[in-house]
Amino acid sequence: MSAVTQNSAGNALRPLQPPRRYLFGPGPSMVAPRVYEALSKPIVGHLDPYFIQVMGDIQQLLKMVFGTNDGTTIVISGTGSAGMEAAVANFVEAETKLAVFANGYFSDRLTEMAKRQGADVVRLEKPWGATFTDHEAAEFIHRAKPNVVGFVHAETSTGALQSGQAICAAAHDAGALVIADCVTSLGGLPVNFDQTGIDVAYSCTQKGLSCPPGLSPLAISKRAMDWLGARTSPVRSWYLDLKLIHDYSTVSHRYHHTAPISMFYALREALLAIADEGIERRWQRHRRSHKSFVKGIEEMGLRMHVAEEHRIPTLNTVRVPEGVDEARVRRRLLEEHDIEIAGGFGPLAGKVFRIGVMGPLASEENVGFLLAELTKALSAEGYRQ
Amino acid sequence: MSAVTQNSAGNALRPLQPPRRYLFGPGPSMVAPRVYEALSKPIVGHLDPYFIQVMGDIQQLLKMVFGTNDGTTIVISGTGSAGMEAAVANFVEAETKLAVFANGYFSDRLTEMAKRQGADVVRLEKPWGATFTDHEAAEFIHRAKPNVVGFVHAETSTGALQSGQAICAAAHDAGALVIADCVTSLGGLPVNFDQTGIDVAYSCTQKGLSCPPGLSPLAISKRAMDWLGARTSPVRSWYLDLKLIHDYSTVSHRYHHTAPISMFYALREALLAIADEGIERRWQRHRRSHKSFVKGIEEMGLRMHVAEEHRIPTLNTVRVPEGVDEARVRRRLLEEHDIEIAGGFGPLAGKVFRIGVMGPLASEENVGFLLAELTKALSAEGYRQ
Repeated sequence: MSAVTQNSAGNALRPLQPPRRYLFGPGPSMVAPRVYEALSKPIVGHLDPYFIQVMGDIQQLLKMVFGTNDGTTIVISGTGSAGMEAAVANFVEAETKLAVFANGYFSDRLTEMAKRQGADVVRLEKPWGATFTDHEAAEFIHRAKPNVVGFVHAETSTGALQSGQAICAAAHDAGALVIADCVTSLGGLPVNFDQTGIDVAYSCTQKGLSCPPGLSPLAISKRAMDWLGARTSPVRSWYLDLKLIHDYSTVSHRYHHTAPISMFYALREALLAIADEGIERRWQRHRRSHKSFVKGIEEMGLRMHVAEEHRIPTLNTVRVPEGVDEARVRRRLLEEHDIEIAGGFGPLAGKVFRIGVMGPLASEENVGFLLAELTKALSAEGYRQ
Repeated sequence: MSAVTQNSAGNALRPLQPPRRYLFGPGPSMVAPRVYEALSKPIVGHLDPYFIQVMGDIQQLLKMVFGTNDGTTIVISGTGSAGMEAAVANFVEAETKLAVFANGYFSDRLTEMAKRQGADVVRLEKPWGATFTDHEAAEFIHRAKPNVVGFVHAETSTGALQSGQAICAAAHDAGALVIADCVTSLGGLPVNFDQTGIDVAYSCTQKGLSCPPGLSPLAISKRAMDWLGARTSPVRSWYLDLKLIHDYSTVSHRYHHTAPISMFYALREALLAIADEGIERRWQRHRRSHKSFVKGIEEMGLRMHVAEEHRIPTLNTVRVPEGVDEARVRRRLLEEHDIEIAGGFGPLAGKVFRIGVMGPLASEENVGFLLAELTKALSAEGYRQ
C-alpha cells in the first residue's frame, strides 16, 4: 500500500462510508432520496443548452420560495456565506454607510464583511435572542441615515425571527437599500420578498430547502438591480460580481466560471419537491412540527430561549438546564444515536441547544423520536425535572 | 398544475433527465461511477468528526497530485475561479506589485482580479498560445522587481504549458512569492509543487481530477504560509480568507462556513481513484492518449495550435481548417452525437477547437471514437483534406 492512501495516523484510507445521521442541527438538514438521486446524475458542460435550461428552471422556482414576482433570482456558486459576501461586496462600497441590526452572530459577520469592504458601519445592538420593534427600527434608520440597511431575518445563532416590514419601510423612506439574511428562513417559512420590500436577500441550500450545502440563492429587487447597473466602482470580488454572474446565468450565457453542475441538479430537484408539496403546505407543516416540539420541550420542564412570538419555526433554541453539561448531552446523542443537535456559541455558549426541525424531519413522528432521545440523554447527564 | 412548476415558456418542468454527453471539452470532464456514488452518500454536519476526517484525508491525498511534502493543502468551497480569487485576495494587497506572464485568458483574469484588489500589475505579453523562455522569465522579473509573480501553468484558453522552474527561481531571487494557476494541470500532468518552487497553486476539481465542479484545491508553501501569518491588513474577502479557512479545516475545526459536504465526498473518492490507479501511471496514460490524439489530428491534415514541446497533454488546441465554420462543427457533434468540444475565444475565437482528453476518456478507444466523429463532422461541414 502506498503512503498516499494512508491517513495522517498511518492507517489505510477506507472507502467512504459516512454514518447515517439524523440532522437535527441548524443545518445542514436532511436531504430526500430524490435530491441525492438528482445530485448524482451525469454532468453536462456549464455552457450546455441543457444546463442553461436548468439554471432558468431554478431561477423560476426560486421566485416561489422567496415570494417574489418582480425580483431577479440568481444562484451563487458558493455556500450561504458566499451569498452574504456577494450581497455585501456588490451593494456596500468603500465609504458606504451601512446600518446593521445587531442581535446575533450573523449580523456580526455582516458587520465584519462590510468593514473589510471599507464601509462605515453603524449598529443598533440588542442581546442575542432579542428582536427589534417597529419603533426601534424606524428610529435607528431615521437617525443613522444609512445608504444600506442590513438585518438578519432568521438568526441561526439565537433562534430569533426579525420582521423586515418596518425596517424596509423606514429604509426606503431614507432612500436606503435593504439586505436581508434569509439563510435559515428560505423554504421553511415565508420570506415575502416583494411584500416586505427587501432589496437583496441571500440564503443557502442546506437548511429550509433540504438540499446539500454548496450554493447560495439570491433575490434582488428592481431598485437594487438598477443601483447595481449604475455602480461605477469595480466590485472587489470578481468571483462574486453579480453583474457578471447575472450575465452568465440569465442574459448572454457567456462563460464566467464553471458552475457546480451537480449542485444545480440537486437544487432544481429540491425546489421541485417543494413545489410538489406546495409551499404553503410546507410552511404549515414546519409550523405544526415547531408547535409540537415546543410543547414537548415545555412538558420536559425546559424553556425556549426566544419569546414565543419571535421564534424561528424551523430552528429552536432551548435553554440548557442548570447543572447540565450541554456538550456531553450532544456527544451522547451523536455517538449513541447518530443524532446531531448543536450548541450555542458566543454569548450563548453552553447556555442553549440549537435544534433544527426542518424538511424531512419536520413531522410528528420525528419530533417525538427526537424528544424521547433528548429526554433520555438529559436524564443520563443528571437532569431531573 | 401550478405556475411555479412551469418554465418561462409555460411548459411543465420535467423530471431532471440530463443528456449523457461525452465531455471532450476543456472541462468539466467525465466523472467515474464511483465518484457519483460518493457524491450521493448521506451527508453529515460540517463539524461532524467524520467530516473533519474526510477533510484531513483530502488534504493528505492532495499532496500526491500537487507533488508536495512541505506544502499546506487546503480546499476552497467554490470553483477554480474562487481558488484564483483566494490566491489573489490573500497574497496580493493594495499596492502590491504583481508581475504577470500574460499569454492567455486566465492571465488576463488574474490581472483583473489583482487590479480589483488595488495592486500595481505589470505584464509581459505574448500571443495566445506562446510560452516564455527561461531567459525572458528571468529578465522580466529582474527588471520588474515585483512582490508577487503570477503565471498560468496550463493555459486553458490556448493549450500552452508554461514551465515554472525559471520563473520561480528568478522570483525567489527577487524575494517575490509565486502564484501558479494549475486549474488545467492538476491530476492530468505533474505540477511538481515543491520541486518547481511554487508558493501558491490553485486548481479545480472538474478537469484533471475527474470530479464534478464545485471545489478548488490549493497548495501553499511554507514561505507563503509565513507571509500570510505576518500579513496585517485584513483580507477583503471574508469567505476566501485562507487563515480562517485553514483554521476551520486543519487547526481548530471551529466553524467558518458550512462546507459543501457532498462535494468533499466526491473529491475524496476522485483522489482515491487516482491513488488506486497510481499518479505516475495516470500521467503516462494521459500522455499516451495525447500522442495518439495528435497523431490522428495530423493524419486528418489538421494542425495543432501550440508548438509540440509546449502542449498541455490533457487539453489540445487544434486549428480550425480554412473555410470551416467551427461553431457548426461543434453544434453537429453535440446535437447528433452528444459530444462536447469547445471553441476558442478572445483572439482565438473561430480559430481553434479546444479538445480535452482527460480522465475516463483518456484511452486509445475513446480517442479513436472522437477522431472518427470529428472527421465526419468536419467533412459534413465541407472540409476536404
